[in-house]
Amino acid sequence: MAQTPPARLMDGRDLARRIVDTSSATAADLRRRTGTAPCLATVLVGDDPASATYVRMKRNRCEQAGIRSRHVALPASTTTDELVGTIAALSRDPEVHGILLQHPVGAHIDERAAFEAITPEKDVDGVTMRSFAAMGFGLPGFVSCTPGGILRLLDEYRVDLAGKHAVVVGRSPILGRPAGLLLLGRDATVTYCHSRTTGLSAITREADVLVAAVGRPRLITGADIKPGAVVVDAGYHPGNIGDVDFASARERASLITPVPGGVGPMTIAVLLAQTVEAATRQLGAD
Amino acid sequence: MAQTPPARLMDGRDLARRIVDTSSATAADLRRRTGTAPCLATVLVGDDPASATYVRMKRNRCEQAGIRSRHVALPASTTTDELVGTIAALSRDPEVHGILLQHPVGAHIDERAAFEAITPEKDVDGVTMRSFAAMGFGLPGFVSCTPGGILRLLDEYRVDLAGKHAVVVGRSPILGRPAGLLLLGRDATVTYCHSRTTGLSAITREADVLVAAVGRPRLITGADIKPGAVVVDAGYHPGNIGDVDFASARERASLITPVPGGVGPMTIAVLLAQTVEAATRQLGAD
Repeated sequence: MAQTPPARLMDGRDLARRIVDTSSATAADLRRRTGTAPCLATVLVGDDPASATYVRMKRNRCEQAGIRSRHVALPASTTTDELVGTIAALSRDPEVHGILLQHPVGAHIDERAAFEAITPEKDVDGVTMRSFAAMGFGLPGFVSCTPGGILRLLDEYRVDLAGKHAVVVGRSPILGRPAGLLLLGRDATVTYCHSRTTGLSAITREADVLVAAVGRPRLITGADIKPGAVVVDAGYHPGNIGDVDFASARERASLITPVPGGVGPMTIAVLLAQTVEAATRQLGAD
Repeated sequence: MAQTPPARLMDGRDLARRIVDTSSATAADLRRRTGTAPCLATVLVGDDPASATYVRMKRNRCEQAGIRSRHVALPASTTTDELVGTIAALSRDPEVHGILLQHPVGAHIDERAAFEAITPEKDVDGVTMRSFAAMGFGLPGFVSCTPGGILRLLDEYRVDLAGKHAVVVGRSPILGRPAGLLLLGRDATVTYCHSRTTGLSAITREADVLVAAVGRPRLITGADIKPGAVVVDAGYHPGNIGDVDFASARERASLITPVPGGVGPMTIAVLLAQTVEAATRQLGAD
């Protein structure tokens, strides 16, 4: 059998850096013109260490890019009403341009109610129902950051999506579902697979573009991949493991995202870009 | 080759009649208890004869079920602002419980803006972004009537959806897209096909449940259907032709909707049921 060369890597770090550089320049320009820097409010409920780390990373990146951040840390005992009240106040606050509620919040909180307290103009993380529908209908609006980052990566590597079969493994409200809708908006034929899917491997082997977004370490291996496919790994597990078994997948795919350095950096880059975009609009500087 | 028996029919007329009977009884009860009958406002822009016929049918069914209807006919020259103003007034009017804007409106009108003027509590046709997202997330809310009718039919005939491969051909905002999301919410593996899909027949032949919602007469024939599949035809074309070639499809499917008498009657039944539900809630009688 002819040996195919291993897949080319889609370098999310490099593309993310360029997006952040652009956002940073726009933020500086905005500050010069309006006297105000873009500001992202981050809301963290409880004391989950992983969530705290994610929020800290996002705030650090903001700072590096000249985006202010305002952090609101709430105790684990926070009620839905209290959280909704806090977020609604941020939605009204003219000094805040974007709002990020770190997911997940405690199980006793109605997370959907909390997300919906984010006004659409400040939904830079793309979590509200309105943003979801905008992605579903191809209307202007902020996209969920990880799916948005995936699309930007595919564009950067000139992956033609029209008429291609894209298979999304995973259907979470801020990752798998919107990713599928965005791919559908680009004229891909889209299949959603998930925990209840039977015959997963037979379906993924039909994929021209495979997006693994299911949160199970190394669920997808080379044998599940059509030769020459484009593979996007949106998973992240301890030990730098993704939802895709990189070594075997790389032997089959033509293009693949590494973990780390693939989708991960893109998520924060899109968050920053959307925060700057939100600020530009809210400051009337567009 | 062993001959399989022709598919059983899914009788939308019969099920729709039972749904309308229930809605009719609830409407009568509501009138008795509150002195108010449910009221659906229908809005028609321009003078397209097919649209006028659809609206008339819907109003007649309302009347038969004891649901009042209030018809607003607007000239083809209506602007987006005028249409939005009219619908916003109906959204505020306490005597109106549901609002239906007949699609399509003229090309010069921003249809999305008009749909969004419908307050979610009165969106009994399931056309707003909020209703779309609620379908996408499996949250309470009104469903788009045709997809909702399809799900009710599948339930009536005890079609098990979990883990099954459902293929939706078509991706319109009020038919194909929400149908796929509802099927995904029922744990089906869902594939969206559309005009840009390549190799359509190979994909539809994988479907355990095939929903044709593409608006092309007899696009799907028996050869495109997996033996034993469940086939739902949401198309309707002059001469009682659907998106599925009924004669050849019936030889392959195990269950199939006829045209007419399949999906069509279900659409209106769901509209009526949702109008009564909206009125019940708005009259505080739930």
